[in-house]
Amino acid sequence: KLQLNLEQIEKGGYEHFMLKEIYEQPLAIKDTYRGRLLVEEGIIKLSGVEDNMKRFLNADRIIIVACGTSWHAGLVAEYIFEDLARIPVEVEYASEFRYRNPVITEKDVVISISQSGETADTLAAIKLAKSKGAFVFGVCNVVGSSIARETDAGAYTHAGPEIGVASTKAFTTQITLLTMMALRLARAKGTISSSDYRRQLQELELIPEKVKEALKADKHIQSIAETYKDSRNMLYLGRGYNFPVALEGALKLKEISYIHAEGYPAAEMKHGPIALIDENMPVIVIATKKGHYEKVVSNIQEIKSRKGKIIGIVTQGDVSVRELADHVIEVPETLENLSPLLTTIPLQLLSYHIAVMLGKNVDQPRNLAKSVTVE
Amino acid sequence: KLQLNLEQIEKGGYEHFMLKEIYEQPLAIKDTYRGRLLVEEGIIKLSGVEDNMKRFLNADRIIIVACGTSWHAGLVAEYIFEDLARIPVEVEYASEFRYRNPVITEKDVVISISQSGETADTLAAIKLAKSKGAFVFGVCNVVGSSIARETDAGAYTHAGPEIGVASTKAFTTQITLLTMMALRLARAKGTISSSDYRRQLQELELIPEKVKEALKADKHIQSIAETYKDSRNMLYLGRGYNFPVALEGALKLKEISYIHAEGYPAAEMKHGPIALIDENMPVIVIATKKGHYEKVVSNIQEIKSRKGKIIGIVTQGDVSVRELADHVIEVPETLENLSPLLTTIPLQLLSYHIAVMLGKNVDQPRNLAKSVTVE
Repeated sequence: KLQLNLEQIEKGGYEHFMLKEIYEQPLAIKDTYRGRLLVEEGIIKLSGVEDNMKRFLNADRIIIVACGTSWHAGLVAEYIFEDLARIPVEVEYASEFRYRNPVITEKDVVISISQSGETADTLAAIKLAKSKGAFVFGVCNVVGSSIARETDAGAYTHAGPEIGVASTKAFTTQITLLTMMALRLARAKGTISSSDYRRQLQELELIPEKVKEALKADKHIQSIAETYKDSRNMLYLGRGYNFPVALEGALKLKEISYIHAEGYPAAEMKHGPIALIDENMPVIVIATKKGHYEKVVSNIQEIKSRKGKIIGIVTQGDVSVRELADHVIEVPETLENLSPLLTTIPLQLLSYHIAVMLGKNVDQPRNLAKSVTVE
Repeated sequence: KLQLNLEQIEKGGYEHFMLKEIYEQPLAIKDTYRGRLLVEEGIIKLSGVEDNMKRFLNADRIIIVACGTSWHAGLVAEYIFEDLARIPVEVEYASEFRYRNPVITEKDVVISISQSGETADTLAAIKLAKSKGAFVFGVCNVVGSSIARETDAGAYTHAGPEIGVASTKAFTTQITLLTMMALRLARAKGTISSSDYRRQLQELELIPEKVKEALKADKHIQSIAETYKDSRNMLYLGRGYNFPVALEGALKLKEISYIHAEGYPAAEMKHGPIALIDENMPVIVIATKKGHYEKVVSNIQEIKSRKGKIIGIVTQGDVSVRELADHVIEVPETLENLSPLLTTIPLQLLSYHIAVMLGKNVDQPRNLAKSVTVE
């Protein structure tokens, strides 16, 4: 009984840890950049990067190793690092990387991402990379975790404890941190202009407020969840920075509702998955204003002509997608590379509400562990 | 009427082009290596590689761009090139690559893979790469196609015309060609021993016979198809060289049967997809002897304990998986890196039979075009 009461207190009035953690994201993202993002001064302070600047600047490429949701954060980071800092990035499943005799040299920088810092495959992957002389940087949430200790340097996400098995605030804070890293390196490499750099800093600082704004769609999302909760399958589509968000949205639904959802880069649809689309297939399409908007709108038209049900994640004030889609969920406008921090929010809420309506154990889904400490 | 008769003649006694093309693979693979693979002399002759050897040997990395099934062949090639020739490889969806401001330099080699040689996104990706000074190599099937003409050099797969929309022999011949490329480069770089190199050549030459052997499971696969044809969802799992084969197996089923199938690297299952598994979820697991066999067996045990139905693709004479799985399909033994050429065969047949039993239009599935010439 005491246990239960304690849990209720810990949940802070929310029905589940997952919902609490979704709502904590404005604060968690702020905690991630607190003391590191100095907008007025135009400075990003990350001592783990600063102290090893030469390793980063001399890197032939960055290899990101991770699993699950952290792997999706790595995919977002690939686009951000290549776009802003012009360093080639390769993202690997830790479990594949460690067993496949990959090419690793002393000039490589390996970034490992893990909320718990205990993911067995990721830990093994960084040990392999270290044995080949690579410089290994850790992005973890849990302070003092095995990966934090095993890496040459690192930075914590400071998201606070994440109890729900399905990762939410860990994902957005990982992206926040990796964005700051990319911006710091871009500045050092001179691959970003002063004005773009300042703009990025300013926009990043505004993200917590915009996440709050995005959270206001909660009731609306709940009604959409009601409509689609009995679906057997769903597709999630995105392009560019929002392609990994589509993967992550699908993973959330899989994890807690046991509905078979799959994410795809939108343009790959016509190379196979479009065959699946008929009136029984809800398709969630991330179609924010920046990021190949017209291309995504044309993908939406293709889905429409095959009678798929469309839920569009759009920028506030969007007109074109609203005309085509069965439902739209709005998120505030931001820079293209920061949009995953906002588009993720409605996808988390959609999965949450569907799982609750289906009576699933949201915080502890079947077959899953919070931290995968076995391979 | 004449049209119909012509088509019947073209199908050569098979009910569908797809089945004909599946059965043509022993010959198609032989056509791919004919005159290029000289086992006695220990020589691989690929003039497109030979004439540009310096570009390949000086490459900082190889970027592979492709879509759909060709993208899966690229993923197999990544493992083969890194393992044998020790060149870092990055595989990209052409549609993502072309729009995301990727890092490309004059030292990069870009390999584009496309059966038709007309894939719009792939064509645009190579134009982008060329504009940045990269050396672009094409792997196409259709002689004189746009991609073949647009690239700096290339090699044809010589698979013969592929009519079925779902690609089969194009995939295995692409892997055959890319394997020869990797072996030629490995020899030139000295990253493979003479004995391993000879062994590879000998084993590659035997693949057509072993594909024939694998095709003998057809009747057995038909009976498995009968059991699972009404499934709404399926998972495909593989590790290492067979992880992309799992993706390709799932794509085949999606394309022609409209069953929602998804491929995953087996070890990622516990980071989410395992939540989907119950007694209604058939799971196809590629568990050949070489390639982390024990790890895959332990993945199979996890699926078993969640009551998933297991179809194992195993090496001839396998014992362990047979004990755990509901069904096994045997393929002949070969070298680990060549195993995708054999494990793919039963997955093609399984999709084919399920689609036929469901009364689907196997050769021309809904919503799909053979060659995606629009973006």
